[in-house]
Amino acid sequence: MNPREMIQDILAKKEQVKNVFFVACGGSLVEFYPPKYFMDSEAKNCSAFLYSGKEFVCAAPASLGEASLVLLCSHSGKTPEVLEAAELARERGALVITYTAETGTPVNLAGDYNVIYGARTEEGSHYGDSPVLLSLRLMAELLTITEDYENLDQIIDGITKIDTVIHNAMEQVADRAKIWGAACEKEEMMYVLGSGPAFGNVYGFAICSMMEMQWQHAAYIHSAEYFHGPFEVTDKNTTYVVLEGSGASRCMDERAIHFLKKYGEKYEVVDAKELGADIIDEKVVDYFTPLMFYKVMCVYRAELAKLRNHPLETRRYMGKVAY
Amino acid sequence: MNPREMIQDILAKKEQVKNVFFVACGGSLVEFYPPKYFMDSEAKNCSAFLYSGKEFVCAAPASLGEASLVLLCSHSGKTPEVLEAAELARERGALVITYTAETGTPVNLAGDYNVIYGARTEEGSHYGDSPVLLSLRLMAELLTITEDYENLDQIIDGITKIDTVIHNAMEQVADRAKIWGAACEKEEMMYVLGSGPAFGNVYGFAICSMMEMQWQHAAYIHSAEYFHGPFEVTDKNTTYVVLEGSGASRCMDERAIHFLKKYGEKYEVVDAKELGADIIDEKVVDYFTPLMFYKVMCVYRAELAKLRNHPLETRRYMGKVAY
Repeated sequence: MNPREMIQDILAKKEQVKNVFFVACGGSLVEFYPPKYFMDSEAKNCSAFLYSGKEFVCAAPASLGEASLVLLCSHSGKTPEVLEAAELARERGALVITYTAETGTPVNLAGDYNVIYGARTEEGSHYGDSPVLLSLRLMAELLTITEDYENLDQIIDGITKIDTVIHNAMEQVADRAKIWGAACEKEEMMYVLGSGPAFGNVYGFAICSMMEMQWQHAAYIHSAEYFHGPFEVTDKNTTYVVLEGSGASRCMDERAIHFLKKYGEKYEVVDAKELGADIIDEKVVDYFTPLMFYKVMCVYRAELAKLRNHPLETRRYMGKVAY
Repeated sequence: MNPREMIQDILAKKEQVKNVFFVACGGSLVEFYPPKYFMDSEAKNCSAFLYSGKEFVCAAPASLGEASLVLLCSHSGKTPEVLEAAELARERGALVITYTAETGTPVNLAGDYNVIYGARTEEGSHYGDSPVLLSLRLMAELLTITEDYENLDQIIDGITKIDTVIHNAMEQVADRAKIWGAACEKEEMMYVLGSGPAFGNVYGFAICSMMEMQWQHAAYIHSAEYFHGPFEVTDKNTTYVVLEGSGASRCMDERAIHFLKKYGEKYEVVDAKELGADIIDEKVVDYFTPLMFYKVMCVYRAELAKLRNHPLETRRYMGKVAY
């Protein structure tokens, strides 16, 4: 069932989709940041919420009910918190859509609709078959029917172009990622800044790429919030990575960069505009830059891992000890 | 106009309040975390959103309109981003409520309803006259009328008790805050963990109390998300503060504490249950513990500031240079 058929099927069952809950943990939660951002930016009559799995279960939203759609993501398909979230959602009468990479896993069996990702979309896109773009497409299909959303064609066109965008962007940062890796090899602490649709990437680069994969102290800071406290730690010795967006949020990132130019010294700017996302229609490009940022930052983290001789897969706790 | 009269006045003007936007920056944003959490937990038909001021303006939500209520907070009353947010909200036809400490300031003049906080509530509560509890009370009044919310009396009763709770809790941590200050005096990096209603405190302690007021590297981590990446940096030398909630979210914090007991060594647990918030009715106590945590953590940060001879008011950029 493709995203359009899925939405048609959902709307045949439900009179109204009043709200959408995006629920996952860690790296999978990051996948849902752009579609949540899309809903906030585009949906007039359907609210969207982003929850870490266990928080969703413990602090169950009062508005979760029969008019709700709950999207769950678990790469392994085994995340217990996501499974609990599925149970709660179904108890409340919501429709559940799951995204997993592994078929036959508990999460893959827990939804009303269960999507396996990681192959290719109908249109042949490789990166389009990721939770972030599959769920973005799904939301765009939903709003097209329920609210006359006007840019679905541009979304679909963006999905056909994302492979090219990502390929070019990754190539473009190859050299500077090496320089960055060498400069950061011995850094104790790393701040990651960004805003708008890229804030999920800011979070993900800090908690997954740095903390989890490099055992690197890191913190994620919203570019606008930077000026309301966090900038007081800035000096010539503090390290920053800034994801500079291309859309309306860009001014917040620019302001932070302007400040870092004056009072910092060790900062890396990763600029969406420069990386060529603009072959995607400007009305929707904001929803695609996060995946580009993610893949580009994979190039950066790989260089750090290589220099430190600390492979990205190395864990001391995750999947190794009981917790 | 007290909160009840304000809601009655609003509902006389608006047929329906479809959604509520809480908009502020930095420390003031933290004030709005508990009422946003209250709305998520209690409101069946009214959605709530929390935005940093500039993000709200740049990524203006599509659902912001005539059926919206926008709550703004600026302690100084001069925050430019909050002023921009007020303009946007009024352009869209929303009703705007402002909370400021200073009368006659731009933000204080920008709303349909403008509240000055920092004196005492009608019932004589000192801490009750803070943005966090004034806006909590406002939301409880709203839901009482629109959704038959049943615990307004318990909320009002909680406001009469919060001064006692905070006074006792601050006294109780006095000695251990001294020990903690001495232990952390030379720490390079501080992680702050917590979940549920206290997550705003986790954020605030990291970005305001530590980064802004102590120029201390810090990161805020959700207790549930800790296990999906961040815990890989944990070792016997990494410093943590865990805010352990008393309600449904407590299990997430307990899990993190259990892990830290095994693999960490330098962690401070600040336990809401132990601090005596339970004189407030259990149906609403979760919405009051954040203010208790805030005041308790003020005791902690003061000890650090004293030992470091780095007064909490010391700034190098905020209000000192152009940015």
